[in-house]
Amino acid sequence: MTIFVTGAAGFIGSNLVDRLLSDCEAVVGYDNLSTGRSEFIRSARRHRNFTFVHGDLLDASSLTESMRGASRVMHLAANADVRFGLEHPRKDLEQNTIATFNVLEAMRANNVEEIAFCSTGSIYGEATIVPTPEDAPFPVQTSLYGASKLACEGLIAAYAEGYGIKARIFRFVSILGQRYSHGHVFDFMKQLAKDPSRLHILGDGSQRKSYLHVDDCIDAILLALDTGHERIGIFNLGTDEVCRVLDSVDWILGRLRLSPQVSFSGGRQGWIGDNPLIHLDISRIRGLGWQPKKSIREAVELTVDWLAANRWVFAKRY
Amino acid sequence: MTIFVTGAAGFIGSNLVDRLLSDCEAVVGYDNLSTGRSEFIRSARRHRNFTFVHGDLLDASSLTESMRGASRVMHLAANADVRFGLEHPRKDLEQNTIATFNVLEAMRANNVEEIAFCSTGSIYGEATIVPTPEDAPFPVQTSLYGASKLACEGLIAAYAEGYGIKARIFRFVSILGQRYSHGHVFDFMKQLAKDPSRLHILGDGSQRKSYLHVDDCIDAILLALDTGHERIGIFNLGTDEVCRVLDSVDWILGRLRLSPQVSFSGGRQGWIGDNPLIHLDISRIRGLGWQPKKSIREAVELTVDWLAANRWVFAKRY
Repeated sequence: MTIFVTGAAGFIGSNLVDRLLSDCEAVVGYDNLSTGRSEFIRSARRHRNFTFVHGDLLDASSLTESMRGASRVMHLAANADVRFGLEHPRKDLEQNTIATFNVLEAMRANNVEEIAFCSTGSIYGEATIVPTPEDAPFPVQTSLYGASKLACEGLIAAYAEGYGIKARIFRFVSILGQRYSHGHVFDFMKQLAKDPSRLHILGDGSQRKSYLHVDDCIDAILLALDTGHERIGIFNLGTDEVCRVLDSVDWILGRLRLSPQVSFSGGRQGWIGDNPLIHLDISRIRGLGWQPKKSIREAVELTVDWLAANRWVFAKRY
Repeated sequence: MTIFVTGAAGFIGSNLVDRLLSDCEAVVGYDNLSTGRSEFIRSARRHRNFTFVHGDLLDASSLTESMRGASRVMHLAANADVRFGLEHPRKDLEQNTIATFNVLEAMRANNVEEIAFCSTGSIYGEATIVPTPEDAPFPVQTSLYGASKLACEGLIAAYAEGYGIKARIFRFVSILGQRYSHGHVFDFMKQLAKDPSRLHILGDGSQRKSYLHVDDCIDAILLALDTGHERIGIFNLGTDEVCRVLDSVDWILGRLRLSPQVSFSGGRQGWIGDNPLIHLDISRIRGLGWQPKKSIREAVELTVDWLAANRWVFAKRY
């Protein structure tokens, strides 16, 4: 079986590629390297079962050509720049919605019958039920990122229904671990790398977040893909825990043995469209026998260790 | 106040334009006349408060230019070809999702702060709660049309949240009335116009549907637009009744005094992605003091009368 991975050079994508290769799968990785990093797939590229295509999802003919012979698509490529969505609204439309449409059309052209899609807990907007289950009340979108992921989910479900594709959709909390390269912990570490005596926090630090380690995330995705015959399966991925942004700051500073002066921008949101709490009900994926192996604290600390050992990731701006 | 109406030459759009003009509003109508009909706006075009722009929503510069000076957008243009979505999936993406993005960007460019958007009850997919309320469980999409309308709703909500636009979103059942030009009743009338001795029905005729008359629909939209200061308001529009497709056939045949031989394609769905029942909970819009003035039967009969008097609409293929 050849597995086609979009966003193969990204944080989660490159971890997934390594896992698939170690499971003896043949993998075609597709990435435009706009946010993905060639360093993340350096070891994969030495593997005889891996083929890398430097291509863009908006280039439908390259995409369709590259997907030939694949039997499963794992679609991770996305504009992950949640925070600055309002500065360039077209990016989410193109890189998420239209890109996903192109992936689905390429699947139709190549008779690929299975897709795994990485969505986000952000699509629940300001959830009224917390922890939020997959069948939460119809949400109102609060960010362009969430809206574009919702659009992708809708497209995938309609293709699954209309063309008989099997789809597994995963709504994530924030993911941490090796190669993590954007988000709270990254921003904090980057600030501290530049000046270990100061740390500025968006919001009042009380925002609660749920995190999951990338290895646990990949375990869940692979399990759900190989379980069940339903045409469409939607799964929240997270942990049963939450932490406050301030907790993560304590763990980071403890791990680094730093005591900077901490300042806050204030307010309950880090930025417009930032959800004060994403905490997902993970009963459904637990029902398949999966459970996270790492706590949020462990995930944060492992991420701090990886970033401290790989300071080169701070050099390029995301 | 100048009101910018997209899809102004369509079934609902042209009825809306006439209403707005009779309410002494200035109206700019925008339509590419791909499914809209110039006959529907013939009387409006004689009105001094009406300006018609023959333009496409995918032409962002024409759209932005035409919207200059408007203070409210009523966005009705869409690919309404629900049934044949699977034959040309790109159409829903372009004419619904991307077109709506262009409308929102044109609003940003012109500082237009209010939008009314015509969505659909189809976005509830196979609803688990019937009658279906606006905060029904997170739906799984079953049609490309529903998926694209969901994408539009998400975009509009994210723009409302992010850029401070006021949005009113309306999820319709099927609409009937003067200028009705696609859907069940249209198909039946067209068949009977061609051969009054035969009628073929998709599905087994037991599919239950809820219909609303276009005049009631417009009453509700205008009321909700002028009520409330919430940034985002989402309203189901329908009646408390449902009818079976077979009931509507009886009313049509009774009105026309015809007794054709009736045949059925069979099955509970008319086509893949057809919902066997769309019945919306309309408590929210009723809470604003609105109620439908016409029953489903009256709406069907008025539509039959209009189509019988305007057989020219059968001539062009939708």
